[in-house]
This record gives sequence, C-alpha cells and structure tokens, in this order.
Amino acid sequence: MKVIKDSVHDHIHVDGVARDLLDTPALQRLRRIKQLGTVSFVYPSANHTRFEHSLGVYHLACQAIEHLEVEGKRAKRVKAAAMLHDVGHGPFSHNLESLTYRRTGRYHDDVHDLLADGEVGEVLRDHDLEPDTVADLVAGEGRFGQLVSGELDVDRMDYLVRDAHHTGVPYGTIDPGRLLRELAFVDGELVLEEGNVQTAESLLVARALMNPTVYSHSVARISKAMLRRAAERLLDADDDVDATTLQRMDDADLLVALRSCEATADLSRRLDQRDLFKRAVWAEIDAVPGGVIEADHEKIREFEREIADSAGVDDEAVILDVPSRPSMTESSSRVMVSGEIRRLEQQSPLVEALRAAQYSQWRLGVYTPAELRDRVGQAAVEVLGLDIDGALVSEVRNGDGLETTLDQFVD
Amino acid sequence: MKVIKDSVHDHIHVDGVARDLLDTPALQRLRRIKQLGTVSFVYPSANHTRFEHSLGVYHLACQAIEHLEVEGKRAKRVKAAAMLHDVGHGPFSHNLESLTYRRTGRYHDDVHDLLADGEVGEVLRDHDLEPDTVADLVAGEGRFGQLVSGELDVDRMDYLVRDAHHTGVPYGTIDPGRLLRELAFVDGELVLEEGNVQTAESLLVARALMNPTVYSHSVARISKAMLRRAAERLLDADDDVDATTLQRMDDADLLVALRSCEATADLSRRLDQRDLFKRAVWAEIDAVPGGVIEADHEKIREFEREIADSAGVDDEAVILDVPSRPSMTESSSRVMVSGEIRRLEQQSPLVEALRAAQYSQWRLGVYTPAELRDRVGQAAVEVLGLDIDGALVSEVRNGDGLETTLDQFVD
Amino acid sequence: MKVIKDSVHDHIHVDGVARDLLDTPALQRLRRIKQLGTVSFVYPSANHTRFEHSLGVYHLACQAIEHLEVEGKRAKRVKAAAMLHDVGHGPFSHNLESLTYRRTGRYHDDVHDLLADGEVGEVLRDHDLEPDTVADLVAGEGRFGQLVSGELDVDRMDYLVRDAHHTGVPYGTIDPGRLLRELAFVDGELVLEEGNVQTAESLLVARALMNPTVYSHSVARISKAMLRRAAERLLDADDDVDATTLQRMDDADLLVALRSCEATADLSRRLDQRDLFKRAVWAEIDAVPGGVIEADHEKIREFEREIADSAGVDDEAVILDVPSRPSMTESSSRVMVSGEIRRLEQQSPLVEALRAAQYSQWRLGVYTPAELRDRVGQAAVEVLGLDIDGALVSEVRNGDGLETTLDQFVD
Amino acid sequence: MKVIKDSVHDHIHVDGVARDLLDTPALQRLRRIKQLGTVSFVYPSANHTRFEHSLGVYHLACQAIEHLEVEGKRAKRVKAAAMLHDVGHGPFSHNLESLTYRRTGRYHDDVHDLLADGEVGEVLRDHDLEPDTVADLVAGEGRFGQLVSGELDVDRMDYLVRDAHHTGVPYGTIDPGRLLRELAFVDGELVLEEGNVQTAESLLVARALMNPTVYSHSVARISKAMLRRAAERLLDADDDVDATTLQRMDDADLLVALRSCEATADLSRRLDQRDLFKRAVWAEIDAVPGGVIEADHEKIREFEREIADSAGVDDEAVILDVPSRPSMTESSSRVMVSGEIRRLEQQSPLVEALRAAQYSQWRLGVYTPAELRDRVGQAAVEVLGLDIDGALVSEVRNGDGLETTLDQFVD
Repeated sequence: MKVIKDSVHDHIHVDGVARDLLDTPALQRLRRIKQLGTVSFVYPSANHTRFEHSLGVYHLACQAIEHLEVEGKRAKRVKAAAMLHDVGHGPFSHNLESLTYRRTGRYHDDVHDLLADGEVGEVLRDHDLEPDTVADLVAGEGRFGQLVSGELDVDRMDYLVRDAHHTGVPYGTIDPGRLLRELAFVDGELVLEEGNVQTAESLLVARALMNPTVYSHSVARISKAMLRRAAERLLDADDDVDATTLQRMDDADLLVALRSCEATADLSRRLDQRDLFKRAVWAEIDAVPGGVIEADHEKIREFEREIADSAGVDDEAVILDVPSRPSMTESSSRVMVSGEIRRLEQQSPLVEALRAAQYSQWRLGVYTPAELRDRVGQAAVEVLGLDIDGALVSEVRNGDGLETTLDQFVD
Repeated sequence: MKVIKDSVHDHIHVDGVARDLLDTPALQRLRRIKQLGTVSFVYPSANHTRFEHSLGVYHLACQAIEHLEVEGKRAKRVKAAAMLHDVGHGPFSHNLESLTYRRTGRYHDDVHDLLADGEVGEVLRDHDLEPDTVADLVAGEGRFGQLVSGELDVDRMDYLVRDAHHTGVPYGTIDPGRLLRELAFVDGELVLEEGNVQTAESLLVARALMNPTVYSHSVARISKAMLRRAAERLLDADDDVDATTLQRMDDADLLVALRSCEATADLSRRLDQRDLFKRAVWAEIDAVPGGVIEADHEKIREFEREIADSAGVDDEAVILDVPSRPSMTESSSRVMVSGEIRRLEQQSPLVEALRAAQYSQWRLGVYTPAELRDRVGQAAVEVLGLDIDGALVSEVRNGDGLETTLDQFVD
Repeated sequence: MKVIKDSVHDHIHVDGVARDLLDTPALQRLRRIKQLGTVSFVYPSANHTRFEHSLGVYHLACQAIEHLEVEGKRAKRVKAAAMLHDVGHGPFSHNLESLTYRRTGRYHDDVHDLLADGEVGEVLRDHDLEPDTVADLVAGEGRFGQLVSGELDVDRMDYLVRDAHHTGVPYGTIDPGRLLRELAFVDGELVLEEGNVQTAESLLVARALMNPTVYSHSVARISKAMLRRAAERLLDADDDVDATTLQRMDDADLLVALRSCEATADLSRRLDQRDLFKRAVWAEIDAVPGGVIEADHEKIREFEREIADSAGVDDEAVILDVPSRPSMTESSSRVMVSGEIRRLEQQSPLVEALRAAQYSQWRLGVYTPAELRDRVGQAAVEVLGLDIDGALVSEVRNGDGLETTLDQFVD
Repeated sequence: MKVIKDSVHDHIHVDGVARDLLDTPALQRLRRIKQLGTVSFVYPSANHTRFEHSLGVYHLACQAIEHLEVEGKRAKRVKAAAMLHDVGHGPFSHNLESLTYRRTGRYHDDVHDLLADGEVGEVLRDHDLEPDTVADLVAGEGRFGQLVSGELDVDRMDYLVRDAHHTGVPYGTIDPGRLLRELAFVDGELVLEEGNVQTAESLLVARALMNPTVYSHSVARISKAMLRRAAERLLDADDDVDATTLQRMDDADLLVALRSCEATADLSRRLDQRDLFKRAVWAEIDAVPGGVIEADHEKIREFEREIADSAGVDDEAVILDVPSRPSMTESSSRVMVSGEIRRLEQQSPLVEALRAAQYSQWRLGVYTPAELRDRVGQAAVEVLGLDIDGALVSEVRNGDGLETTLDQFVD
C-alpha cells in the first residue's frame, strides 16, 4: 500500500486498482494541469493540480464507501471512477472546455475512450473491471454515479476545501467528515439523512461564496477569455494541432505552443507577463438584450467584429465574454425530511435567495487593451444594445457595488 | 509593550492604556469566564474565555483604527472600550443574562458603574479618559461605538473565527482582514465600501450557520436552561447571594455555590456529571400559540407548574424554554452601493432567506429527566395548547428533519 | 456510536466501553481540569482540559490498535485505559502532584482504586474488563502498557499537538499519523520500524522546544509555585481538606476553597488578579551547591524560613523553587536499526545534545513580591551559597541570555 | 496599494517600487517556476512557486524593516531586493543550478545583469534605486544584505513555513513573528536579542528535520538527477539552447524542450510518467572513498561510463549522484548572550549534534532503471571501491535504518 501525504487530508492510503492507476500516464499527466487554471492570476498560491485533487476525491470516496457499506467489486469500481474522474480534463482544466466541446462534442467527463485504451484500460481489466462501467460512473450514471458526480458528490467536497486551502479564501470550509457521515441511499437515491437541511445548505453556501470571490473573479474571467481566444487561434492557425490534440496537452504544452505560434504570440506574451486586457464593459443581466445572452459562438464572434469595426480597432483587440445563465446543481441535492426525500430547494429558502444573488452577480464583459477601453466600451454599448446605465466600466469603478470580490491585481 | 501569543491572531501587541487595563481585577476575572458557557457540553474543546476574546477584539480594534486613521485620544478611547467591552459579563457569559437582567435591569454591556469604580476607573483617569465616555462606546453609542458594538463591530469578527477555531466547526471562518480593510465612515455611519455586498453577506451567513450548529445546539440550550434554573433557585434560597453578587462571580464561584446549596444540589450534580434533562417537547413556531411565545417569566413559571401538576411530577422536573423571536443584527449592516449607503437587507436577498431559515429553526423546548419524558411531553402539549404534530420528541427523533445539528452527545 | 467534534482531531468516534465510560462522573470531572494548569497565565488561549485530551488519546489509541491489529478483549482493554489514563489527576493537573504525592504516596497514574470503585468499576465489569488490569495499563505495565504510557505512547502524541494548537506555539507540531503508522511490536517491545530514527527524533525535539517555551516558562513556574504553596497552606489550615480530598477536587473547587480560607486569601487574590511574585533569584545549575539541588521538601521549607529571616521579611513572602534534575523519557524510545532494536540515545547524537540543552536551561528560582526582590535576592544568595554571578535577577534581566522564552506578561 | 491574498501570510500589502516590480516580466516568470522542483513527485501538493515565495519574503522583509526602524531609501532598497531575490532562478529552481553554474559561472543570486537590464532596471531607476546596490543585497553583501540572504534572513523564514504548508509536513513550522520581533543590529551584525538561543535553535532544527523528509528525500533526489542529466543532454544536443538560455526558461519551456529533443525523449517520458530510475546503490559516507566524494563533474561522468561498461549496459542507464558534504548555514547565526554576540555553534550543543546527524544521513546514490538494478549495483560497488556493507539497495531496503523519510511512492 502506498501512503501519500496530502496538504489537505494528511495521509491518503492508496492500494489495489487505485494504486495501479496512479502509475498510468493518464493520471500522471494531471500533475501538470492546474486545478483552477487562470485563477492563480488572482490568488498566486492557487497552483494546485488535478492530480492532488484526484487523490483527495479518491480518499473521500473510500470513506463514503466504507460508511455506506458498499463492498466487493462495486466498491472497487467506485474507487477507480473517483481516481479517474478528471483524466478527461484538457490543459487549464475547465478554461478551454467550451472551445474543445464545440469542436469535439465531448466534455471532460466523457471518458469512455480514455478508459478503454492504453494503460488505464489494461489496469482496469487486470483488476476485473469493465472500462465502460467505470466511465458511466464518471459521467454520474447509475446509483453509485451520484457519489462520483452528482449534487452530493465527493468531487465537490474535495474541491471546496482544497481551493480554500490553496487560495487562502476561507469561504469554502465545509465539513466533509460531517457530510460523509450523513450520506445514505434511500430508494436508490443518494440523500442526506434526517436533520441535515443545514448540512446541505452549508455546501450550497460555500459554493455561492467561493463563486464570485474565486471562480468567477473578474481577473480570472478576463485571463480565461484571453487564453481561450489564444487557443482558438492556435487551432485555426496551426494544422498540427486539432481540438483532440489540444485536449490531451498539459499546461506546459499549451503555454509553449502559444509562444511558438505567430498568431498567438501577442496574447501569449500578455498572459506570460500578466499584461491583461481590461474591462470596457461590465454589464448586469438586466442591461443586456436577450438576443445577446442567448448568442451562440458564431454570433459572438460577429458581435466582436462589429464592435471592433465600429471602434476602429483591430479585430483581435476585442473579446466579448457572455457567461451562461446561472445554475445551481446543489439546489436539487436530496435531504430526508419527515421520512421523505425532499429536494433542497423545496425545503430551504436559501436556494431561492442564492439563485437571486447569482443573477445579480452575473456580468457580461467586453475586454480590450487598457488604452482602447473608452472607444471599445462605447462601441460595444451601441452594437450590443446595452442599457448604458451600469454597463460602462468607468461607472462600475466609481461605485455600483457590483464588484463583490477581492480587488487583487485589479486595475 | 507586551506581546501576547494568541492561538487565533498569533502575536497581539498591547500597550498604553490597554496594557494597564490588562492588570486590573475586572479584566483578569474574564480568564475564568467561558466564552460560550454550556456549549462545551456539545463541543468539548470550546473552553476559551472572555479574556482571550477581549484581547482579540482589542487587536482587531487597533487594526480598524489604524485603517480608519483615527488618532489621538479618540483612538485611545476606542482601544480601551474594546478591551473592556465584556467586563460586564456574569459567569457563563450570556447564559444567565436574562435572569440577572430581570433582577438588576442591567445587561452585560451596561458598564458605566464598573468602569467608574476601582482600578479600572483609576487606570482610565490616569490615561486621561473619562470612564463614562468609554462606557458609552461599549454600549454602542456614538460614531465610534459602532466599531465596538454594532452590525459591523470587531466583536463579531473575533468571536466568529475564535468560536470556529475552538469548537472545530468550520462555518465561522470569515475573513477579518478583508472586512477591516473595507470599513469606512460615510456621513458618520460605519459602512463597508463599494463592492462589498458579498463581504457583508459572509458575516451574516457565518452567523446563520454557527447559530443552530453551535450557539443554539439543543444540548447547549438544555444545559443552559438547567444552569439558569439552578441559578434562580440559588438566588431564591441563599440570602447571601443576590443578582448583583451573582453577576460579579466567575464560573468557579457559581459552580461551587450551586454544589453547596441544598436547593440546587441536584441540578448541580446533573450538570457536573452531564446527566442532562431530555427534550419532552421540541415544537416549531407554527405549532405554538402566540400567548405562549409572548409569555413573560412569571407566566412561564406558571406553565411549568401546570405541566408538572398535570403530569403528576415534581415542579422541579419541568423546564419550559421559549426563545425570543429570531432577530438578525447583521441585516442592517451598511454597505455602499452605487455611491449611497444601503442597509444589507435592502440589497441582499439572503437576508430575507436567512430570516426565514431562522424562523424554521426556532424551537420551543420542554425539558425533563429522561424517565419522565412521555408523561411530561403529553401534559405540555395539552397545557400549552401545542399543535401536536411536530411537537413531541418521539416524533422529532424519528425524523422531522428539524434537528439540524451535530448529534454530539445527544441521546 | 457517539461522534464528537474535536478541534484537533476533527471527528472522534466513541463506542462500546469507551462510550459508557464517557458518562461516568470520574471522566466528566476532567472537563473542569485544565490540561496545562497555570500555563494559561502565559498563553491565554491555553484553556483546554484533560477531558478533550482524554478523548484525543483514546482516538489515537484506536488508530494504533487498528494498525497493530490488536483485537478482541485486549483491544477493548487498551481503549478503556486510554480513555481513563488521566482520571487520577488532581486540580490543575500536574501542578500539585508533588504535594499530593508527598501526602498520599500516589501519583496521578496510580488509579487502581479509582477504577475499581463506583461507576467506572461498574462499567468496566459490565464490559467484562478487570479494573486492575486496566489500571496496570494506565501505569504503563505490560506489553500494551507501553502504548498508553511509555516513550512512544499516544498520550505524548496527543498532548504535543494539542498544546501547540491551544497555546499557538508551533513547536509541538509532530506528525501523529506518521508515528502511528510506523509502530510495531518486536520481541514484545513497542518500537518504530526501520528508517524512523528521524521520526523518533521529531518527538524528542518537539518536547525539547515546547519545554522551555511552554511547560517551564518562568511565569508558569512562578504561578505554579504560588498555587502549590497555597494548596499546602490550605491542607494545613483546614481540617476538612486532606490530600485525598484535594486530589478529587476540580479546578473550581480549589479556586473557591483558596478564596474562602483565611490562610490562603492573599495568595488566592494574587492568583486571581495575576499579581504574581517576581524572581529574586534565577540561578543556573552550576551556580547552585549540590546540597540545595538535592534538598527534600522539609529542607526547602527551612531554607525559605532562613532566607525570610535573613531578609527581614515574612515567611510567606519567600518561595524557593528547585526543579528536579532534567530527564528525557523519549531518549530510550526504541527504533529498529539494521534489524535490531536500538534505544534512540544509542543511535542519535541529538539525545545527548538535547540533554545538555536541558541542563543549560535548568534554573533554580526564588520568588517574592516585587517590592522585596532586592532584599530577598541577596539573602537567598547568601543562605543558599549560590555563586552570585548569573543568580540575581537584575543581572538576568539585563542580558545573560537565559530567558529563552516569550516574554509574555513577564515583568 | 495592491493587496494580495496569500495562503501562508494572509493579506500582503504591496506598494511603491515593489508594486511596480511585480508587473515586470522577470517577476511574472517566477509564477511558472516551482519552488521545490521535483519534490512534487514525493509530495503531490508541493506545487507552490517562486512567485508566491517572493511575495512572502517581501512581506517579512517589510515587517523586519519596520521593527528595525530602517527608513527611507535604505528601506526601499531592502524591499526591492527581497522582492527580486529569486529572479535569477532557472527552471525547477535549485535543481539545475550545479549544471548552469558549471557552464555560466553564475549562481541564482548573482543578479547584477538581470537587475540592470530591461523593465526591472527601469523600475529601479524610476524609483531612484541603483540596480547594482540592490543586486549586492541579493548577494547578501553589506549590513542589510544579511536580512535578505544570511543566517537569519527572511528568505529562510518564509520557505520553511511555506514548504510545510504545501507539503503537509509539519516540521517546518517555526514562528516567524517571534523571530522578526527579536532581530537587532549590534555592531553592524544582524543578531537575535538576548534570550533567544532557543529561537535560533528552532530555525536550525526546522531545517534539519525538513531536509531528509522533504528537500533530500530519495525520490526527489533521483528525479532531480534525471532532470539534470536530461538538461545536460539537451545542452549538448541542441545548438539553439545554451546554458544562459536554459537559465532564462520557465518550467514549461524546459519540459517541452526535453520532450521535443530526441536525445532527451526517453528521460522526458520517464519524468512525465513518473517512471523513475531506482537506487542501485545507496551508500553512507563511511563506505565511500574520499576520491569519489571529491570527484568533479568530469570524473563523475567517467565513473558512470565505467560502471555502465562493467555492467554491460548503456551509458545513459547509469546516474551517479554524489551530494556535497553537509553544511549548516544556521550554525553561524548570531545571538546575544550575556551582552556579547555569539555564533550559535559556540552556544548550542544542538549544532554539533545536527551536524553529526547530517553526516549520518548523507548518501551516495547510483540510479538506474529497475530491471538493471542488480547488475549496475554490483558494478558500481567495484568501480567506486565502496565498502559493500550498507551500500547495496537490496540491503538498504531490508532494513539498515537509513531511509529516514516518508516512503511515499518509493518502491
């Protein structure tokens, strides 16, 4: 048995199929993929990787399995799925996921091919596990899939505490031991036992606070948008790199590829030197026409060209960043109340409130080099048909109370 | 200058008037008063005292003052008030406050007399401070009183992190450094600067999660009710102890007094051995007639006697515990939004949701020795006119989802 | 099964005999006995109790037992012993141990009577355990006694991390998980497996650094000496209190007894108000004649009277504090080296060095009210025949490099 | 002023010259250089970077400067030097330093050129600072150079706690606040004030415990040796990369360069997949002839070829790793004792003991692919003239007590 020291869970014991999986290239690659992508531009200590997170998820899965008294092959399968749940991530984790999905039709949790092939497939079969069944668990399918990917999964329990530990932001400090101890299967559904409405709420609240402070901090969003744009140009400019190749890169591969390709040299230099675009527009949801919110990728690229045109600047100098509508997975986590299964949103007034908060935190952004901010901002307001109040950054910065995050490095 | 090592804030530097106050009997007494009273029956590590909390509040006050550029005598006054803000606490902190208030008309933050007299008064006057003005600050009066006792006070910032550290419950982990850095005075009001709606929410949420898990855990409430009942009997039985004497005791004095007095010997033995009463009734707010909720102390004692009578048990065996209606100080904390001062409740949908959650967590309790639970429970339902659904503990314990806390030591 | 939240080990699971023991008066009493006695005069956060420590020791014992694959009745016995190992402590833990030992012939780990009697005895017998055998384990006897009380015991592993957590002094941060994982029985001896010389050293070093900084900080020693003196007077003055009664008190009982007894009122007031004696003498081992170092209690009292006499002050105003010669239990902890069991001191040059350091940190103290310091200091030098260099406090304070501790509250 | 959240020191305030330096490419590059190089193969959470460490060193330098009451230009210079002290590091920090030094004659703290040129030079001159004088401080020259690089420097204080935080190994937990508060200049020398022998020892002990457990863990050494060998081959095989270019790369550049170069493809694959060489020999200092210990690089390469030859394996399959003789910078840290400056080694018996421990932990290693271990081991013993006892790994692994580290991932 291997014992691995982890800065979050202390000693993690790894054996059986998990130990053999650890030595596969697919898992070792995760050592070179940052858990939070560009968030380290905001929180410089946030350099943790998908590898240590995978170990943590495996560790919590083992505890959950023991508590739920799952045994034999079924247990082995869940452990393998926990360890492997993130092997499908591309460089910089979620940062490029929308891009690669557009071109491959595949999200990071679609790992049927990855698990069937190569050393991972061999290890699974050596341990008498069917790769497809493990991949189903990773996709959250079936009863035990809920443990690996669902509203009450061990993935969430690990990343909230781990991201809190590494960013230094205390809001993610939930109590995984408490959560695990209260898990149960009722009628095939993973639920929290009686008396845990508040336990479920704590998970919801932790994510709701980490979201604007960490995951969607404006600087993390700007740098992510720049990275995504650069990666898209790379795919278009370099015949040797297609979306599937990109998805199998690690962070180092991508950084160096962007440096070497002429079409991405400028964005790459900006990212390397943290010479980031600034917000020309930062608009609330009510200020944005529905057509813009629902625009697909092609439409967004078109808007960008129109804005650039209207502002008289180069196409490359404008990035339009339209987040999807807010959602809250945890709202449907299940809790036993008076002997019946209830979805958290039926039970807790917090769900609705946090949903409202998410809407009020939603922002459309238009990013551009600092010196073009005014021109691009005005053009964007016109082209997108934004309600001008609360959209322009000059106004934002003088106090509309919407920047609810640590102003680190923001200027 | 003294440097004191604190397990929460690391090194605390104490000098000037604060240093001299430290050596007064009034402050040294706080070493022997537990911050959370009977909460240590639930969380055995929660043995921290009002003394270390006072040091922590002083420490944060110094940082706030520096950030706000308050200087000279005004600064000295706030520092003194921060250090002294809890000298008015009786044994077991808030646990007996309703009792002593009923008999003395004085809450713990009414310290005009305490600051004027004795060594504290001398020290203040030696440092050219008027005791009355310092006492006003402790009562939250005036512009700077908001820093010591208000919606955004340093008291709250210390106790949330300190209680989290000592109980081990992670929910109280706010970010005091962030909060302090964002404080400002606008039009004489203490506010958080633009962009801090979420910072204000984090404070609110931390309290909302700590409340049922720690401060109002059912076992903490039961033991508090027993302690309060015992103290009341002591006052009635022992001519040497009146409410003012009681308020000046420390925890040791009270424990020993309860052991020595015949009228309290049984309750005292129960508390010493953690042989606690159990819940015979645990009723939601909707199940309780308004007349019971609004009942004053006399009326409550009367209910108790009626319940005992009806159940055919001794008067002493019944405790009726009716908490006051939920309130939420933090809801009116002030935040700058779009250049104007707004109360948090105007701005954040969380306020209303947490208020609703508090109402749903409110419980009336009737406590009695384990073996009398059934008889007393049924009698109480009748006497109080409770809606029987959701009121009796047998039902509670089989799952009405209302016990939202760690079931530590609960049986 | 009970689950208890601990600020050091997070969730502790308690069941079987341990759970029943938890509810006994003997164990509940430990809630009211501070782990570090008067150390909280130096580190105000150090208010943790023998109760939470007992839970922690039980928790680590369970882990050790599982790792060592001890099972059945033997395992149950070790768990009971771990939970009960400190029930013999008097008020303020070790602070009065020399006094009570002198009068009862019993140290805190001699618990045969305590375990045979009352509820503890009942619980043990109900669980089919022989109280005497459990008491033997507490005394460190037999193979498994080493786990409870020995060079590599779980007691030490808990208190080092717990005291670090509560004082805020980081030096005690050993790695209990690592230590437990490396324990083994070889030829009936508890050892650390191959490759753990450094693991053993870490334990030794942690204690060596915690010792002068925390456990033997001069202010902790002064206040302990005052408390011990007060307790001795109480025994002499109050016919109702003998050493056995004293040993069964909790901290509150003792504090109040000292306040109520005329003979101890002054010392009691000083302790309550932290108005402590000061060092008149603080002498290194080389400056002290062997006869003084070896003096027994009677002889020390005689010295005190002589010093008082010679200085022309009241007997009560002089306390002579002669620590015993340094010792280092951990030096004989056993480690496997090249396939044979070696004592750490045979293997590690650190043992000798730390022993030398302990000798150089040893100090004889003479304590007295501040205003008598000079007179008493000079008298003590003469009476005790001290080498005057390095003995008087005035010199100490101007820099002989001997005060190796945080100067908290020292004056 | 920028405020940056750090997972170790919480909020770090950056302004003036430090703020401007932060935006230079030279400093931003440190975001992509791991603090501990290949140590993350042993401790998967150890992914922290030179960037966050530089912020931490700057933060502690500010505190030291304030405590020492250094002001004006002198203070500004020290702050700039603290922020810049690591810009000279190549990829993977110290891992390749011996290689690049051999070819450039320059260690990482020789930064005169780096500070004079480009944006860093501009920023320094804009703030009226002479690049050369700042570079002198980085090299530890002059009175204030001791603060930046010396026995009591802030560099050490940051990395010990930071490495402990990120590896999860608790041994590095010193008390920086205490250390900083006790710094003073006496006769131009940076010393710890009276009474701090133990404070100085704590620094020494922390490094002595972190060393074998973290910095020189056998797996970290093996992977470092492989990385260094690969980098050397890269320099020899690729005309576009010379030592100076190499030194200016970041981790990503190097990883990708190794992947792309045919001569390094195999080592690169091994590193990427953690398919590491194993120890064929692991010999104590007494088993190694002096000629081997003192061998220079050329001689070592010759030994390797001879071993490969004698074992009948490829040259590339043998790495000989001879660490330099142990040294202990902290041994000469200065402490005030009885009014005079003493070097710690004059005062503390620990210094000698830890030095002896270091000698006993010294190991020569010969590394090779697992399947060649036996052949290469035997050949190496002969070629190097090792005393066969205690040198071969088979023996090591069956228990000579020399592997004093966590056996993470070791096989």
